[in-house]
Amino acid sequence: MVGVRIMTILKTAVLGASGYTGAESVRLILGHPNLDLVALTAHRHAGKAYGEVYPHLAHQGLPDLQNWQDVNWDKIDAVFACLPHGASEETIAELANKDIKIIDLSADFRLRNAQVYQKTYGRKHTSPKLLESAVYGLTEYARGELKSASLVACPGCYPTASLLAILPSLDLIKTESIIIDAKSGVSGAGRKENSALIYPEIAEGAHAYAVGNHRHGPEIDEKLSAIAGQNITVSFTPHLIPMNRGMIATVNVELNEGVAVKDLRSAYEKRYQNEAFVHVEAEGVVPHTRHVRASNQCRIGIFAGRNPRRAVIISVIDNLTKGSSGQAVQNLNVMMGWDETLGLNLVPIFP
Amino acid sequence: MVGVRIMTILKTAVLGASGYTGAESVRLILGHPNLDLVALTAHRHAGKAYGEVYPHLAHQGLPDLQNWQDVNWDKIDAVFACLPHGASEETIAELANKDIKIIDLSADFRLRNAQVYQKTYGRKHTSPKLLESAVYGLTEYARGELKSASLVACPGCYPTASLLAILPSLDLIKTESIIIDAKSGVSGAGRKENSALIYPEIAEGAHAYAVGNHRHGPEIDEKLSAIAGQNITVSFTPHLIPMNRGMIATVNVELNEGVAVKDLRSAYEKRYQNEAFVHVEAEGVVPHTRHVRASNQCRIGIFAGRNPRRAVIISVIDNLTKGSSGQAVQNLNVMMGWDETLGLNLVPIFP
Amino acid sequence: MVGVRIMTILKTAVLGASGYTGAESVRLILGHPNLDLVALTAHRHAGKAYGEVYPHLAHQGLPDLQNWQDVNWDKIDAVFACLPHGASEETIAELANKDIKIIDLSADFRLRNAQVYQKTYGRKHTSPKLLESAVYGLTEYARGELKSASLVACPGCYPTASLLAILPSLDLIKTESIIIDAKSGVSGAGRKENSALIYPEIAEGAHAYAVGNHRHGPEIDEKLSAIAGQNITVSFTPHLIPMNRGMIATVNVELNEGVAVKDLRSAYEKRYQNEAFVHVEAEGVVPHTRHVRASNQCRIGIFAGRNPRRAVIISVIDNLTKGSSGQAVQNLNVMMGWDETLGLNLVPIFP
Amino acid sequence: MVGVRIMTILKTAVLGASGYTGAESVRLILGHPNLDLVALTAHRHAGKAYGEVYPHLAHQGLPDLQNWQDVNWDKIDAVFACLPHGASEETIAELANKDIKIIDLSADFRLRNAQVYQKTYGRKHTSPKLLESAVYGLTEYARGELKSASLVACPGCYPTASLLAILPSLDLIKTESIIIDAKSGVSGAGRKENSALIYPEIAEGAHAYAVGNHRHGPEIDEKLSAIAGQNITVSFTPHLIPMNRGMIATVNVELNEGVAVKDLRSAYEKRYQNEAFVHVEAEGVVPHTRHVRASNQCRIGIFAGRNPRRAVIISVIDNLTKGSSGQAVQNLNVMMGWDETLGLNLVPIFP
Repeated sequence: MVGVRIMTILKTAVLGASGYTGAESVRLILGHPNLDLVALTAHRHAGKAYGEVYPHLAHQGLPDLQNWQDVNWDKIDAVFACLPHGASEETIAELANKDIKIIDLSADFRLRNAQVYQKTYGRKHTSPKLLESAVYGLTEYARGELKSASLVACPGCYPTASLLAILPSLDLIKTESIIIDAKSGVSGAGRKENSALIYPEIAEGAHAYAVGNHRHGPEIDEKLSAIAGQNITVSFTPHLIPMNRGMIATVNVELNEGVAVKDLRSAYEKRYQNEAFVHVEAEGVVPHTRHVRASNQCRIGIFAGRNPRRAVIISVIDNLTKGSSGQAVQNLNVMMGWDETLGLNLVPIFP
Repeated sequence: MVGVRIMTILKTAVLGASGYTGAESVRLILGHPNLDLVALTAHRHAGKAYGEVYPHLAHQGLPDLQNWQDVNWDKIDAVFACLPHGASEETIAELANKDIKIIDLSADFRLRNAQVYQKTYGRKHTSPKLLESAVYGLTEYARGELKSASLVACPGCYPTASLLAILPSLDLIKTESIIIDAKSGVSGAGRKENSALIYPEIAEGAHAYAVGNHRHGPEIDEKLSAIAGQNITVSFTPHLIPMNRGMIATVNVELNEGVAVKDLRSAYEKRYQNEAFVHVEAEGVVPHTRHVRASNQCRIGIFAGRNPRRAVIISVIDNLTKGSSGQAVQNLNVMMGWDETLGLNLVPIFP
Repeated sequence: MVGVRIMTILKTAVLGASGYTGAESVRLILGHPNLDLVALTAHRHAGKAYGEVYPHLAHQGLPDLQNWQDVNWDKIDAVFACLPHGASEETIAELANKDIKIIDLSADFRLRNAQVYQKTYGRKHTSPKLLESAVYGLTEYARGELKSASLVACPGCYPTASLLAILPSLDLIKTESIIIDAKSGVSGAGRKENSALIYPEIAEGAHAYAVGNHRHGPEIDEKLSAIAGQNITVSFTPHLIPMNRGMIATVNVELNEGVAVKDLRSAYEKRYQNEAFVHVEAEGVVPHTRHVRASNQCRIGIFAGRNPRRAVIISVIDNLTKGSSGQAVQNLNVMMGWDETLGLNLVPIFP
Repeated sequence: MVGVRIMTILKTAVLGASGYTGAESVRLILGHPNLDLVALTAHRHAGKAYGEVYPHLAHQGLPDLQNWQDVNWDKIDAVFACLPHGASEETIAELANKDIKIIDLSADFRLRNAQVYQKTYGRKHTSPKLLESAVYGLTEYARGELKSASLVACPGCYPTASLLAILPSLDLIKTESIIIDAKSGVSGAGRKENSALIYPEIAEGAHAYAVGNHRHGPEIDEKLSAIAGQNITVSFTPHLIPMNRGMIATVNVELNEGVAVKDLRSAYEKRYQNEAFVHVEAEGVVPHTRHVRASNQCRIGIFAGRNPRRAVIISVIDNLTKGSSGQAVQNLNVMMGWDETLGLNLVPIFP
């Protein structure tokens, strides 16, 4: 029995371990029974103990940070790439010919359309073949493809919250009516040297940003359109609010003729009834971001609008977990044929 | 000159001074050159020094709290009624025959339609005549009526932010397309003995509430409909986010055929160009709640949506100031024929 | 092997599961491989699903809340008593004759001296025999007694942070010089219907409380005095600061003649070198509460004071975990002869 | 009368207007009846509208930012220098021969001892003559000197809170026993491009910093020693806590033989009874930072310690107002012979 377990242990590396999604990936790998963490990379911090960069992860027996070029890749079975866009594509292009499962948490392989990528991210995609082979890892909608994938692009946090909230409704709503008003915790902006993100600029206030042009808009459009079989352009307005973790997507939709809110609810309950991480809340229950904090859960509430032809669908996730590193682990679990919840039975932290 | 000034000093009372709008009214009256504060009432706290209830207002030489029945009303020129709905109506009914300017900050005289009031607030309105005479004090749209008013109903915080954001657009948008996603600071919930409002339940998280049935929905509908001359039902979803003060209304609208976002912008700039408190931000500038904190300002940003037929209008206010006590003072200034900015040149507090 | 494991699974109940320490106990039991959670009690909420009271713990398959009198105690092996003081003593007195391990998280069995208890908590202790048998569960200093204990009194959060920070120094400092300045997150005040705890009264500010008379003062004195073999009275000033979880104790001490700060450091490093949960930080490293959030860790920093005869010792814990429910589980692990870290390898949550 | 008023209007400039103390100075000047703001400087942002740098101060009719070398100094009567240390000294040396009142908010002229300055700030002081002439502007203790001063060094925020809390006690306590545990809001760290200050690194946690070597320690020592006529070295441990504004100094002292806490209280009440901004709270009242937010107040609470020979003195200020720009204005008021409260009747903002 010991032998069997050893065979299924993957040696993993986290690239870009100095960012928040890197640190969250480390946290989850530490709690995963089938994953060993053997390498951590961070260009700027190579040579440092990881606890110098993330003191909360000191005293865990972790390897020091190094340059990714210095990693012995023959010893690595799986990679969590937590790099900025651009850097991620370049690094992954180097690793792609090795026998390594690659879970990319950046934006570089999310969009199928390289032109949309170029327009959205301001750089030409230089790995079109890899782009073709990459699986978009919204786990609940990608299990078939994930099983044989070697490169998975984890969805952005806003797309994760939005798509889980919208997809079951596509046959029941006017697809041109989708209005997403989203609010994110500040960790979504990354660990940056940016005076606009310091505590006094963020605490005790709220604001929208990237109104009409946030990069996650095209990603949501592309995935909805592919599944609906028609071009969909959503309205999408993200906001930054003073909390570390958490994301809420409030989606306003117009119902098709003859569709009632209870029909919408039924569709969601049916779609998600067997999901371990997506919960449709009982009628009248409003999901809070704090109820899924530090967990891999997505919770969805469904409500009648004031206008009887409209409904409001609200989803909440932890942007760093289900919106990033948690979903990454979930995808790896599916790729490996493991129980999808392995290492992800994370009880939410409250308060 | 001294004589003239003395003649215009109003002796004011704040009813319900133990709530947050009461305390904010006191703050503003203290800074108003033409107002003297001579009575503070609070049923539960009668007999206490005000500083016991609001220590931040200790050391200001304020009168003690008393029961409103104990106030010598002959000495009062103006009242800020900061009572809960129901209590407000009853108290104001008693004061209405006196020569006192009444500024009501409760919901009791906001709705013109007594049936909508009853349905919304769960109690029958018992002062229909007063209701008829009350002026709805969204100052920028009520100056004519305010000049001769003796009873003013100050708008709710959500209606203030929403109406200022929507009204100039009514001829340019499809009025059935209005989607308001609003976020409020926690002071809007009042100073209550409520475990759902304690710090650990609110900090570091966000949630919608009263989805589809918030009491400010009918108020917004009624005012928009009256001005548009047609029935309008808005979508309106309020959220509670972890900040003391501040409110943001993100309004999504569909433009009429032939209308461009720049036309929308022009209409707003024209409408508000002479307003002291409402500012239309330059193109690309996103308003933050923290930029109007503790001030009477409303700031409005206008943006193209992702969908070219849609626009996003964002307004921010301080819910306790422009959304409540500040607008109350503004209304009194207009009623008295004073400079509308008197006592309201409040520089925002940041950070 | 399956049989062996089944034999060591304890059926546990959480009494007072509607408070924050109750919810934290539930979280930790859910993650503990040897504990099953079979009963949750809460007087006021009996009959409710636990997810109604703590939505973050919905979807976990937990039993409904009930009155403690309705629990079938024959089926319970261990109890986490998370009741208010007074209620805890009364309930535990009823359970004490059963074969149940009792971990009390209240203050009722912490003080050895019943008169000090009465003076501090304003009620007479009515179970003096139980009081004698109870073990004070500051785990790192109580392992010997814990092994045979049937009733354990878990230390208060302030005493946990303070004692871990002070005890290794007792031979090296002037014991009359101990000044503890402590700061707590708000969850320490409990989930109360208290307007003084609502978000706007707590956020964006700080204050001391119970200056000179906090109930944890006598507890710290008693434990220090017992170990030092002399009467010690510490200075202790607690503060409430705007964070959900976390506690920091900043301890100022005067060194004995001939003792240097490096001697102090050596004593701490030696004392805690084999501890799984207590870490002495490297020279110059300041511990943050956020680095131990949601974990069972205590981190201690040791610093030279400005005055060369003084040193500053700083300890941080999560008040709900090492300061309460985590230490409770740690104590049970020791009582059962299990690996002390079972269920407690909690990676801190950051950000 | 009009003529008289015009004569007393000072034309002021704010140097370093892009920092938080700069912005706070601007706020206060805007509300001061005798000050006109005619120049704002900020090296990095020269040429920008001030509202681009501080949007909360848009719509106030302020001058654009410029380089200080471009200011027409002949038109300036008074300067608030809000520059970093070093830069401040250099700039002030250039302005010192002009007929301009200089209020320096930096550290450059606070310490009388140039060697201590060099040791503390790591640079040699190059204006020793100016240093001699500068008045240390802890207003309540400096009025005599301020009247004829042309250069005032405003105290640091920690020294302001600490000195106001300690000075009246010097004859009543053992001066070697002073332990200051201080907690600051984050604005005290400035508006920096520093990833250690971004919201997720600060929110929901607390930590000490610069333990044993904070730069404000020598400043406190020097001022206490000068007044006491003996060398005093205080213990001083600053902490950073998640709030924008506010500072609390918790001071632990040992009373002299024969001195009781009530004697201490009497001394403070007597010393501060005529002060407009310093309030000694009634017995049992604990001062909160939130009760002085955005005001120029300092509030002081006096408490018996647990040890009968000790007392705890707690002072709270707003670090940006009384701890910086407010005291700067207060000093200017004294220098000009004006009512000391001019422009400073700031009602605290709560919540």
